Amino acid sequence: MGSIIEAEKPVTGWAARDSTGLLSPYAYTLRKTGAEDVVIKVLYCGICHTDLHQARNDLGMSKYPMVPGHEVVGEVVEVGAEVRRFLVGDRVGSGAIVGCCGECRPCRDEVEQYCNKKIWSYNDVYFDGKPTQGGFASAMVVHQKFLVKIPSGLALEQAGPLLCAGVTVYSPLKHFGLTTAGLRGGILGLGGVGHMGVKFAKALGHHVTVISSSDRKRAEAVDHLGADAYLVSSDEAAMAAAADTFDYIIDTVPVHHPLEPYLALLKLDGKLVLMGVINQPLQFLTPMIMLGRKSITGSFIGSMKETEEMLAFCVEKGLSSTIEVVKMEYVNEAFKRLERNDVRYRFVIDVAGSNLDASGGAELH
Amino acid sequence: MGSIIEAEKPVTGWAARDSTGLLSPYAYTLRKTGAEDVVIKVLYCGICHTDLHQARNDLGMSKYPMVPGHEVVGEVVEVGAEVRRFLVGDRVGSGAIVGCCGECRPCRDEVEQYCNKKIWSYNDVYFDGKPTQGGFASAMVVHQKFLVKIPSGLALEQAGPLLCAGVTVYSPLKHFGLTTAGLRGGILGLGGVGHMGVKFAKALGHHVTVISSSDRKRAEAVDHLGADAYLVSSDEAAMAAAADTFDYIIDTVPVHHPLEPYLALLKLDGKLVLMGVINQPLQFLTPMIMLGRKSITGSFIGSMKETEEMLAFCVEKGLSSTIEVVKMEYVNEAFKRLERNDVRYRFVIDVAGSNLDASGGAELH
Repeated sequence: MGSIIEAEKPVTGWAARDSTGLLSPYAYTLRKTGAEDVVIKVLYCGICHTDLHQARNDLGMSKYPMVPGHEVVGEVVEVGAEVRRFLVGDRVGSGAIVGCCGECRPCRDEVEQYCNKKIWSYNDVYFDGKPTQGGFASAMVVHQKFLVKIPSGLALEQAGPLLCAGVTVYSPLKHFGLTTAGLRGGILGLGGVGHMGVKFAKALGHHVTVISSSDRKRAEAVDHLGADAYLVSSDEAAMAAAADTFDYIIDTVPVHHPLEPYLALLKLDGKLVLMGVINQPLQFLTPMIMLGRKSITGSFIGSMKETEEMLAFCVEKGLSSTIEVVKMEYVNEAFKRLERNDVRYRFVIDVAGSNLDASGGAELH
Repeated sequence: MGSIIEAEKPVTGWAARDSTGLLSPYAYTLRKTGAEDVVIKVLYCGICHTDLHQARNDLGMSKYPMVPGHEVVGEVVEVGAEVRRFLVGDRVGSGAIVGCCGECRPCRDEVEQYCNKKIWSYNDVYFDGKPTQGGFASAMVVHQKFLVKIPSGLALEQAGPLLCAGVTVYSPLKHFGLTTAGLRGGILGLGGVGHMGVKFAKALGHHVTVISSSDRKRAEAVDHLGADAYLVSSDEAAMAAAADTFDYIIDTVPVHHPLEPYLALLKLDGKLVLMGVINQPLQFLTPMIMLGRKSITGSFIGSMKETEEMLAFCVEKGLSSTIEVVKMEYVNEAFKRLERNDVRYRFVIDVAGSNLDASGGAELH
């Protein structure tokens, strides 16, 4: 069982150096493997919109050099002495959080993502004082609590986006009681989180409407993802006809936008569930809420327990993410395309298949 | 049982004539008493902040002449042929709504206050095409569905404010599951709704903090209303110390205000319940919601069923409203004092004890 590794391990990742957010090769070391630590060789890593925000310091709290990546699928290559849940060779996943206090109410209730002392998988500082670095790298060390096994029924490259985008939309559906068949749901925005929202909601037996700012994704939403309806938010007549008909709307838009048009679509007790971290305030008129006892709410990724549940749900229902696999050399171009929402629906980096030491450099010119 | 009244009844109310909101005597007629109608002699009527908004056209939808008043306590003087629930001489209450469609989901679910075709007790049009007029008048005709009996354990003048302010804060406590003893609640704003919030929350066994913009009401909140704590929102140290400690905050502030300071007080899954109709948008940052799975929500008065329940709860717990009784001649002065929140905590007009035909007129000069 497990071996104690005494030395720090050299590793190569792709790091942003400043708020341009451009990534290039970066050499650093992983901490010594602790008793409950697991060393993983990174196989795949999804690219989430938050990676772009953080690399470019859009949230004003970035520290450099920063190796992004928090939708990590890897293979266990070493385990600490007290690791019982994982064996060398296991395929595992790691998400946005790699540490928590273990003592507060959220931790005790197994919703450790709400722990005020949670440690982010990158752009944060670990218990040992070292900066955390993410999954755009050859390897990571992760405490066993923050790893899940990837069930054998899931393709490894598709599992990555489930670990953030997937659980991010699964968690509120579950938590807010939106699992009853027959509910009418709206998915606003068809990106990484949105496309998983459509898949999960359909698998739960909901009537699902994709709401988008243009007609561009109609065929994709209806034919490929299986949405029941498609609503263009600028089509006033269609929006008026749909007023007061939704039990919930999952709002995945990551930039400033008005809320009133969507609040109007909700029926009595309807919920607007916000998933986008937006650095400008959103606004609403109180009667829009009060006169239908509606809620504006939101949630943040999901717990490790919910992640395991969600992966099992995906296997049971035959669901997975829809992705475009790229090499690490393409990551800066992928960021640019992600920014203009030009991806169907998630980039996943084939980390193990990339030459991490060669920047290629084309994107820097 | 009941008699059919064939003629329209002349009545005197106090009406606003324009957006100055000044009230003065106004003669009009009540509709012929229908089979399910009840004619009541108005005894008392509370003054709600909404009356002031409507009289002054603050919400942009006022029609004049307008007789405000929707916290009405009266005595039954006539009943229609099919009225079975009330007898002449009964003491009854009427609130903000006097009609609904009876067929939509909210109506079927007995939350008729959310019916899209609800009819307001004044500044609206009844089924017969006549304008509705409120309780600042000698009499009203109300369909039996929209009346409740006032239990014998309640003083009539104190019952008025329970019919709007009382049920407005009772309903969300009940609906959002905030009835468990030991919850920690905040009441923001100590007006008509807020003071009932403190009383109800204490009666439910909550730890109750009154949150206010100044220290002025501390003794009142703690000594008179029995609040457990008092928090001044401009006291940054006290606000920081109280962060992450509230299960809910009932926000009764009827004017524009920031939400972030109060969202920060909520713990995981905490609810900010808005009670104030505000005609400027309120704003918030999405991470304030998402990172604690918090909700911004609100509700609108309460159903007739909840009103009955709430009155029974008041009798059981020995609760009532805290009021200042005035005559109708004082109503314009009362509006002015209400506007500057100079009332402890609700004005109630002694309608039956006022000379409705004499304006006095002092306030018009």
